[in-house]
Parts: sequence; C-alpha cells; structure tokens
Amino acid sequence: MKVNIILFDDFETLDVFGPVEVLGAIKSHELHYYSMNGKVVTSAQGTQIITEDLDDMQPGGIVVIPGGRGTRKWIFDTKFLDSITTCAEKAAYCLTICTGSALLAKTHMLDGKKATSNKRAFEWVSSVSEQVKWVKEARWVVDGTIYTSSGVSAGIDMALGFIRDQYGEEEAEDIADGIEYLWNQDENKDPFCR
Amino acid sequence: MKVNIILFDDFETLDVFGPVEVLGAIKSHELHYYSMNGKVVTSAQGTQIITEDLDDMQPGGIVVIPGGRGTRKWIFDTKFLDSITTCAEKAAYCLTICTGSALLAKTHMLDGKKATSNKRAFEWVSSVSEQVKWVKEARWVVDGTIYTSSGVSAGIDMALGFIRDQYGEEEAEDIADGIEYLWNQDENKDPFCR
Repeated sequence: MKVNIILFDDFETLDVFGPVEVLGAIKSHELHYYSMNGKVVTSAQGTQIITEDLDDMQPGGIVVIPGGRGTRKWIFDTKFLDSITTCAEKAAYCLTICTGSALLAKTHMLDGKKATSNKRAFEWVSSVSEQVKWVKEARWVVDGTIYTSSGVSAGIDMALGFIRDQYGEEEAEDIADGIEYLWNQDENKDPFCR
Repeated sequence: MKVNIILFDDFETLDVFGPVEVLGAIKSHELHYYSMNGKVVTSAQGTQIITEDLDDMQPGGIVVIPGGRGTRKWIFDTKFLDSITTCAEKAAYCLTICTGSALLAKTHMLDGKKATSNKRAFEWVSSVSEQVKWVKEARWVVDGTIYTSSGVSAGIDMALGFIRDQYGEEEAEDIADGIEYLWNQDENKDPFCR
C-alpha cells in the first residue's frame, strides 16, 4: 500500500510527520512525498523536503493532506486544486490533518460528508464550504474512506485510529507503545473544543 | 537563538519534527538542519531533507540530536562523533531524543551526568557508556544545560519542558494548546517504563 503525502510551501511540519511516523510503522506501507511540479518544499518550520511531481502519483493508496498557514494561499490555486482533486478521487483513503480539510473541502470530495479541523482555525475552515457537515467537537472524524483530524497533534491520534480500523487494535497499540505515545483513542473526546 | 538540528541517514522522523514543531513556535528561534558534509539526508521513514554542513554550524544556540536506527551505525563513525562533539561543546543547550542520547554519550558530554533514552532500546543505549548516570524511569531528564528524552513522542514533552524552563509555563501551555497536544508535563512520570 502506497502512502502518498501531499506537500506545499508553508505546510505545518508536525501535521505531516506525526502521521508519517505512525503510517510508516507498517512494513507494507511505502511512503512517497509529492508537490506541485515536484519541487523542494519548505515547511512553516523551515524544513526543506525533496518531493516527486503530484501529477505522477499512482492511483490507489492512502493520500495524506496536511494543513498549516500555506493552506490559506493554496486554496486559491486552481491548478493545485485540480491536481489534488485527481489524486484524492483516485485514492483508496484520504487523510487530512488540521486545516488540510479546507483544501479537501475545495475539491468537493467532502460534499455531504462529516469532517473536522483545527479548533483555532475552525471558523475559517468551515467558511470554505457550506456543503460539508462540519463537526466542531471531535479529535478526528471518519466518513467512509475519508478521515479528517483536528489540529496538528490530533493527526497522530487519527493515524493510529486509521491503523486500528485497517489492521486491528493490537497493531495500533503496539505502534503507539513503540513510539512511546499516549494515544487519545476516543475520536469523540476533544479537549481543545471550547 | 538558533536551533541547530543534527540529521543523519535513518534518523527517526518524529524524533526531530515533534521538537521542531514546539521549538519553532518561538518567533526568535531560527531553525537550521545540519548533517555530515551537508548532504541530502533520508529519514527512517523515507523523507529526504536538504541540510547544511555540520562543520559550518555557528557556536551557541540549541543543538538537537534525534535517535533512530541510524544511531547504531553512526556511533562508530569517528569523524561524525568529532563533529557533533565540537557542536555540542559549543552549544548553549543540548537536547537529545530517544537513542540520540547514545550519540551524545559517545562524545563524553554526558560523563557524570544523568540521562535517559527510549525504553525498548534502553539496554543498548546504557551499554554505550558506563560514565553516564542512566535514569530508566523518566519521560525526560534535565542535567544542567543537557536535556535527554525517552522514545520518539517524549521529545515533544521534553521540548515543551524546555520552553517552560526558558520562557515560562504560560508560553509552554500556549504552544501545546496551539498544536492541540495533551502535554505530559511531569518529567518523572513514565508510563512506558516497565
């Protein structure tokens, strides 16, 4: 199973590398990093990452879309949205973290579906599309093959939830134990929703 | 204040990017990524990162050393150890995550000091040096200007602890809240030590 991570300038670093740590723990998962035109992408924390071209992404697999301040610019880039729409439509599963759900909302893949996002950016994200059933109080939300998480660290909990759904509770707990992570297992318990 | 992150092939991805997320939240922190000869470094999860040359690192600042399976090879590389010894000796603070403390132990910077490491690799790490006062049960350990954390995710808790020590409790809590992270604030409470 391929894990296809979509990067863009000013993505939030931990949005990506929390889930990468968890999803990468499954031996059959093959991780790939993509961006528009396959350039070097710089995260909001200044990490420069080498990527492949988004348009070369193979269908199927798990597509991961992070958030971060970059999303505020990228939701207006129609070429980028066209590319991620194609990728998301062909994916077996779509996982977004934080404001990554704003990008997925713009592709119309979330129309009629439940989704969540970062609590501090919730008003903005939910304003991006009225077609989405936005759920404010949730650590993460699953609707069919689409997983959306709350802010940054919630992506780790969601990724472990995805592992649980795919490979069972024991596998998820073993991964959490291996990375010494206190997993917040209940997707409905959201201590950051006020 | 510069945050100088030392990378090497097969470092553990989240060891780096948990603390990077936290340390990068302080506006005056400037993040730099270094490696031997300033090459492209590939993490254990296949992330390719552009780095600067270790030998060009400026003195002072915060040095961050991750762990990961790569440490088992790198602790035998005398040129690499010489370089990180120079960097660590000139740093204002040294932070290691997971088996990163095995690397720092080899530089003799931990001689006579308390330190911890990943629980699943503890036997190996503590065998690297008898000069270190290894503490098994700890989420992280502070000894003077040196911080060492337990496995992977514990690096996030340690980085927040470092922020608390430097900038106060409120700043640390605000960062944790911003990234929606349930901070394990007690460095002595270690649920993974069995």
